[in-house]
Amino acid sequence: MATSSYKYFLVDTPAPFVAHVQINRPKKINAFFEEMWLELKTIFDTLSISPDIRAVILSGVGDRGFTAGLDVQAASQEGVLAQQAGVDDAARKAVAIRRHVQEFQDCIGSIEKCAKPVICVLHGVALGLAIDIATCADIRLCTSNISFAVKEVDIGLAADIGTLSRLPKIVGSTSWVKDVCLTARIFGAEEALRVGFVSHVLENKNAALGRAMEMAKLLAEKSPIAVQGTKELLNHSRDHAVAESLKYTGLWNSAAIQTSDVERAMLSGLKKTKPRFEKL
Amino acid sequence: MATSSYKYFLVDTPAPFVAHVQINRPKKINAFFEEMWLELKTIFDTLSISPDIRAVILSGVGDRGFTAGLDVQAASQEGVLAQQAGVDDAARKAVAIRRHVQEFQDCIGSIEKCAKPVICVLHGVALGLAIDIATCADIRLCTSNISFAVKEVDIGLAADIGTLSRLPKIVGSTSWVKDVCLTARIFGAEEALRVGFVSHVLENKNAALGRAMEMAKLLAEKSPIAVQGTKELLNHSRDHAVAESLKYTGLWNSAAIQTSDVERAMLSGLKKTKPRFEKL
Amino acid sequence: MATSSYKYFLVDTPAPFVAHVQINRPKKINAFFEEMWLELKTIFDTLSISPDIRAVILSGVGDRGFTAGLDVQAASQEGVLAQQAGVDDAARKAVAIRRHVQEFQDCIGSIEKCAKPVICVLHGVALGLAIDIATCADIRLCTSNISFAVKEVDIGLAADIGTLSRLPKIVGSTSWVKDVCLTARIFGAEEALRVGFVSHVLENKNAALGRAMEMAKLLAEKSPIAVQGTKELLNHSRDHAVAESLKYTGLWNSAAIQTSDVERAMLSGLKKTKPRFEKL
Amino acid sequence: MATSSYKYFLVDTPAPFVAHVQINRPKKINAFFEEMWLELKTIFDTLSISPDIRAVILSGVGDRGFTAGLDVQAASQEGVLAQQAGVDDAARKAVAIRRHVQEFQDCIGSIEKCAKPVICVLHGVALGLAIDIATCADIRLCTSNISFAVKEVDIGLAADIGTLSRLPKIVGSTSWVKDVCLTARIFGAEEALRVGFVSHVLENKNAALGRAMEMAKLLAEKSPIAVQGTKELLNHSRDHAVAESLKYTGLWNSAAIQTSDVERAMLSGLKKTKPRFEKL
Amino acid sequence: MATSSYKYFLVDTPAPFVAHVQINRPKKINAFFEEMWLELKTIFDTLSISPDIRAVILSGVGDRGFTAGLDVQAASQEGVLAQQAGVDDAARKAVAIRRHVQEFQDCIGSIEKCAKPVICVLHGVALGLAIDIATCADIRLCTSNISFAVKEVDIGLAADIGTLSRLPKIVGSTSWVKDVCLTARIFGAEEALRVGFVSHVLENKNAALGRAMEMAKLLAEKSPIAVQGTKELLNHSRDHAVAESLKYTGLWNSAAIQTSDVERAMLSGLKKTKPRFEKL
Amino acid sequence: MATSSYKYFLVDTPAPFVAHVQINRPKKINAFFEEMWLELKTIFDTLSISPDIRAVILSGVGDRGFTAGLDVQAASQEGVLAQQAGVDDAARKAVAIRRHVQEFQDCIGSIEKCAKPVICVLHGVALGLAIDIATCADIRLCTSNISFAVKEVDIGLAADIGTLSRLPKIVGSTSWVKDVCLTARIFGAEEALRVGFVSHVLENKNAALGRAMEMAKLLAEKSPIAVQGTKELLNHSRDHAVAESLKYTGLWNSAAIQTSDVERAMLSGLKKTKPRFEKL
Repeated sequence: MATSSYKYFLVDTPAPFVAHVQINRPKKINAFFEEMWLELKTIFDTLSISPDIRAVILSGVGDRGFTAGLDVQAASQEGVLAQQAGVDDAARKAVAIRRHVQEFQDCIGSIEKCAKPVICVLHGVALGLAIDIATCADIRLCTSNISFAVKEVDIGLAADIGTLSRLPKIVGSTSWVKDVCLTARIFGAEEALRVGFVSHVLENKNAALGRAMEMAKLLAEKSPIAVQGTKELLNHSRDHAVAESLKYTGLWNSAAIQTSDVERAMLSGLKKTKPRFEKL
Repeated sequence: MATSSYKYFLVDTPAPFVAHVQINRPKKINAFFEEMWLELKTIFDTLSISPDIRAVILSGVGDRGFTAGLDVQAASQEGVLAQQAGVDDAARKAVAIRRHVQEFQDCIGSIEKCAKPVICVLHGVALGLAIDIATCADIRLCTSNISFAVKEVDIGLAADIGTLSRLPKIVGSTSWVKDVCLTARIFGAEEALRVGFVSHVLENKNAALGRAMEMAKLLAEKSPIAVQGTKELLNHSRDHAVAESLKYTGLWNSAAIQTSDVERAMLSGLKKTKPRFEKL
Repeated sequence: MATSSYKYFLVDTPAPFVAHVQINRPKKINAFFEEMWLELKTIFDTLSISPDIRAVILSGVGDRGFTAGLDVQAASQEGVLAQQAGVDDAARKAVAIRRHVQEFQDCIGSIEKCAKPVICVLHGVALGLAIDIATCADIRLCTSNISFAVKEVDIGLAADIGTLSRLPKIVGSTSWVKDVCLTARIFGAEEALRVGFVSHVLENKNAALGRAMEMAKLLAEKSPIAVQGTKELLNHSRDHAVAESLKYTGLWNSAAIQTSDVERAMLSGLKKTKPRFEKL
Repeated sequence: MATSSYKYFLVDTPAPFVAHVQINRPKKINAFFEEMWLELKTIFDTLSISPDIRAVILSGVGDRGFTAGLDVQAASQEGVLAQQAGVDDAARKAVAIRRHVQEFQDCIGSIEKCAKPVICVLHGVALGLAIDIATCADIRLCTSNISFAVKEVDIGLAADIGTLSRLPKIVGSTSWVKDVCLTARIFGAEEALRVGFVSHVLENKNAALGRAMEMAKLLAEKSPIAVQGTKELLNHSRDHAVAESLKYTGLWNSAAIQTSDVERAMLSGLKKTKPRFEKL
Repeated sequence: MATSSYKYFLVDTPAPFVAHVQINRPKKINAFFEEMWLELKTIFDTLSISPDIRAVILSGVGDRGFTAGLDVQAASQEGVLAQQAGVDDAARKAVAIRRHVQEFQDCIGSIEKCAKPVICVLHGVALGLAIDIATCADIRLCTSNISFAVKEVDIGLAADIGTLSRLPKIVGSTSWVKDVCLTARIFGAEEALRVGFVSHVLENKNAALGRAMEMAKLLAEKSPIAVQGTKELLNHSRDHAVAESLKYTGLWNSAAIQTSDVERAMLSGLKKTKPRFEKL
Repeated sequence: MATSSYKYFLVDTPAPFVAHVQINRPKKINAFFEEMWLELKTIFDTLSISPDIRAVILSGVGDRGFTAGLDVQAASQEGVLAQQAGVDDAARKAVAIRRHVQEFQDCIGSIEKCAKPVICVLHGVALGLAIDIATCADIRLCTSNISFAVKEVDIGLAADIGTLSRLPKIVGSTSWVKDVCLTARIFGAEEALRVGFVSHVLENKNAALGRAMEMAKLLAEKSPIAVQGTKELLNHSRDHAVAESLKYTGLWNSAAIQTSDVERAMLSGLKKTKPRFEKL
């Protein structure tokens, strides 16, 4: 996949089998409106099945931040509520809103559904929708100057694009989750690391992108059958009882273990060479 | 809600929309017997629907501690086992015990079911039932002198009022959960913070109550639609797969987003004023 | 249970009601092949119902490590893939592999199913299958020199004997889980403690075994009804919604609370004596 | 339990251990308003724990029918929508409606939660809420002149007091369920029997009450431990996977089998006498 | 929606708010290949949100039958297996097959996801994929000359487009389901009616289409808020425990009951007029 | 598999790939005691993996009936209650009983877990355990003289070996299920057919065995990949939501569709010959 020309995102391939997706609206600190999340879904659906990609990095263009979240001004002019202005019936409004929220959720959720691991690099401002997006990624890195906040309650909303569904499942302390979701307070890198929201803190954006690139290259050199299976099975286990996951795992591997990647990986291990794996 | 005269609890309103519930049996370090947990349920069921309350603080009267747990002496004289003394049939005893345990669970669970966020301030002695109660709260603060213990195995019991069901879901380390639940050992503030059981440690009870008051006031100033929705959706996500939670969230917000609170909150944000929200 | 003569494990009773199971193939750093995991199941199934055992310690013989994981050489010669060499039909191979994986999972899972608490002492090399095994134990201790790795992706596999199903549920940070499962990188004691994978780090194997022995003796002195109920109910809560767990707990205790252990434990508490409990 | 004086229900004990509950507002064909379903819950909660009752019959007073359902006129004057007339905020209305619906569901659901088996005798008009109520009973009998309808869509509503949740689980044909729920058409006795909604059709109300009484007496003579366990386990199985139900059943019977009823029942079987069982 | 020009389907609007979708490849007894099921999804996704449609009829063009199922010849030339001919790696083939099957399932599943009720009219030949499609509809009618069969085992396959997942949930007898799915035998109208697979049998295709039209018109005259809510809630109940469905229902109706359709429907009921409802 | 010499069962191979298992204790109308159900498990575990068996018939030796159920006399002398005679502690008894019930459930459940379809032929007396066993089979046939009863409540028990967990899921009418489970009344062939408990009624045992043999031969001639996959996926769907089953099905078929059986089956279809499939 050569550098693609999307409208609101930069997508290129900085290393073999590695894609880098950048949110590209730096003047508005990468704030999102509807056209953007529709494009985001197109990108991740494409990466998910592209045989030339085995790992994805997601970051934001510019110095100011990953994303300031929803572009509230745009949302109030073009969004579902704006469109429903002429509708009086609360039940009919509710149907339209529900459809809109589900579509929005589906777009952001394409990051999680992407078959390839996604490493999210968070820097500077990372508010509201930034958290929804980050919780869909597999691995989160951030810079030491990060400003995170689950901002939605401050505009009269319970966050509805995924944060409340996913955040409690990716960190350990519910007391902390409720604290930041109910108060909408800013939290920083040290706190994010301590509670496990991010797994590494780097000193600045360049360092964080560098670390992400190292990880992405490492993943891209491994068997794509093994890496993609691992992502799928870890996501499955989040939502199922252990016995159910074990059964699903057994079924998964009944085909996956037949891959020639196992032999290649083992031989390379013995010969201390780098294995090469067929496209997937 | 003016200061109410409950028998075993002090309930007052130290700030607008904030309720403070205090366990009030300090001579026995706030140890519980049946009449107390029935009253506790009445209080939290009332707070849950009171339009004048938007945040709740729960603490224990006195210097010695939050609560020493079940009043074992009282339990042995009036409890379900005492009442079943004349019954020989193990199956009939089991029916009576199960009913009793479920009622007890329901009473303590009223804290979790309360629609308003509950901040639990833990100090000094906090044993057995203290943990069952604390795990039902949304946010936990403690003092540096706290003595926590999941004490039940030491009286020949598997804890049955909620600790074993909720504790593994509110902290990150199962190895730690099993350690403290199986050994019944005391653990302190530093450990509680490290594993995420509490989200803040304060130096003493006054400081902890002060911090809780700040948080409660902050929550009480926000849109009650947003705050109560956030609590409900976070509790829902604990017990459901992500896809299920997302669907429920979309349905929830199909009505909630229609609130005028969104507009008020946004305008206040632009004008840098404090929004005022209608009762709920 | 006197010292038993298993082929690949040492099993003895270093203290009353305490069993110590040691993986005993130190020349190969305790690497596993099929006969070994079948024997492991026999041992834990036996311990599970033995009235003379109330707590179990699991460790590896020798200085080099707990276990290096699957003996890949043995696996390639005798394992299910080797046996399927002459089969061409991918669907028939899949059936055989699935059966084999499920049997393997069942053997390792016998540690989790064991009714008595299992304390796992991890030292030195602890790769691949070591993590599958450790995640089945109740409490994990390690030495400061430990080298952990979820190694499977490096041999072209998604780990299928339990790590991907259980690890996300026993530590708090999913970002960390995905990092170590996707990269297969080594991680040490400090990191394992920070994320909650282990609950204690000891300086060396002797110290770790000592600490495990203390814990095991402590558990063995408590009511076996209370201890085994606590293990079962904590395992149940991992896989169920809270309301479901509370209901199951109420039913569990409807019989368990009828035990005379409650009275014995309470009396001993008052008299400051050690209670003695009947066999279970 | 002697004949009780409830306001909208007749409750008496026509045979030992058998209660008969009759909806008693025949002038309005037993149509329901809020006070009535609150009373219904009080009655069934009482029967559930009364040691003098082992089986319950539920029917409607008068010739015209079991119940015409919700008293729409009353609902429009005193119900939740009426009370919300002055509220403009759709989100705040939604909160009030949700609370109201849940309370209503809980009241009707008390029939299902009643520990004793409930036999519902349906005659004449049985519309809307009649179906919600009937689906909560354990066994349904009807008269040949019955007129059933899931009437709610005809007043602009999706039925929300239980019919849509329970009906698909108590009959076999989803095509039929959707037919009657979407069209709101009347269906009669023959059709109800064919799809399994009722298990017996009797020629008139007297005959149906007679048959119900026979069944109730039969159940009342059996071990209450066995009968109530059977009801609970069948309800559990509806909502759980088979493996889960088997586990719950094993736990249930670990106490229940210890009853002396087993010995009494067996001896009576041998001696061809009627066993007598202790109260429960 | 005027008559649309799809390639493999006829779609028109024979009555206000009623769409009629006809599979249109009669020369091949409406057998399906990939392009067709992609088009089917486009159609049902469009109908799902079209404000001009409130009920849908699905049938097959021609005298010979509803559909003979998968066009096996086309499948072997263009399908996923054909495309994978050059791939040796069983694991990589498995990934491609899984993606293909999921896309196929999603296309057929669009019938079930369609917000409007779908009435399926089955006549003549209705094999294999015909059953997958029919199980996605809400109400099934058939002609007396129908020939149904779950045909997949006879081509070496376990049916994978929905029959095995849905059929056991829409009829009552598992013994019958296993009989027809394992033997692949033909079954007719009388049997389909007896087990509840269809809810009505008509003498020929014209009569069946006539009956479907009557039902569709009836549904199209009712409140679309009520009808679409009823479909959604019935589908929800199939996949959830009763307590879960009741909660979801309460939330659903918290917005839906606010519709003006309730008042319109009630007034029309009193005035014996036909209500008219706003678009949805 | 030649005719095997089990102690309480006859097992032979009356046709290629067809096993016939007969309960062989006709003097006691095939009543069961512990040794028998342990042997039953051995037999079905063996058949499950035997490459020479593709379908199984299960019936009872003798004219009097399939089985009279549990041999109550034997149970009272050797069973778990007898063994616990000396134990006073209700909690310890409960542990022993639970283990025993789970083992008993596992033995009977081996029929359901058997990878090959099991056709159960029921004649004459079929009480108590007969129903537990029959509900584990895939297809049930009975003779016109059958006497079925869920007999357990009459000996003071809630049926605990599977009937209460499985029966509500294999027939359509819950009202009927509760009727027969609560009353313990006898029901016959016509009723069993009407509610879908059996799918065919034959005039006598010979005819029923003949019909079962025809079906078994038919299944044995089909692709074992297809047949066994169909059984597994139908059992999976019983216990899972549709979306979950579809996902599992897609994964299952990602390996299964790669079988050469598909090509063989299709070719045979074209050539009108009988396909031959490799062993599985």
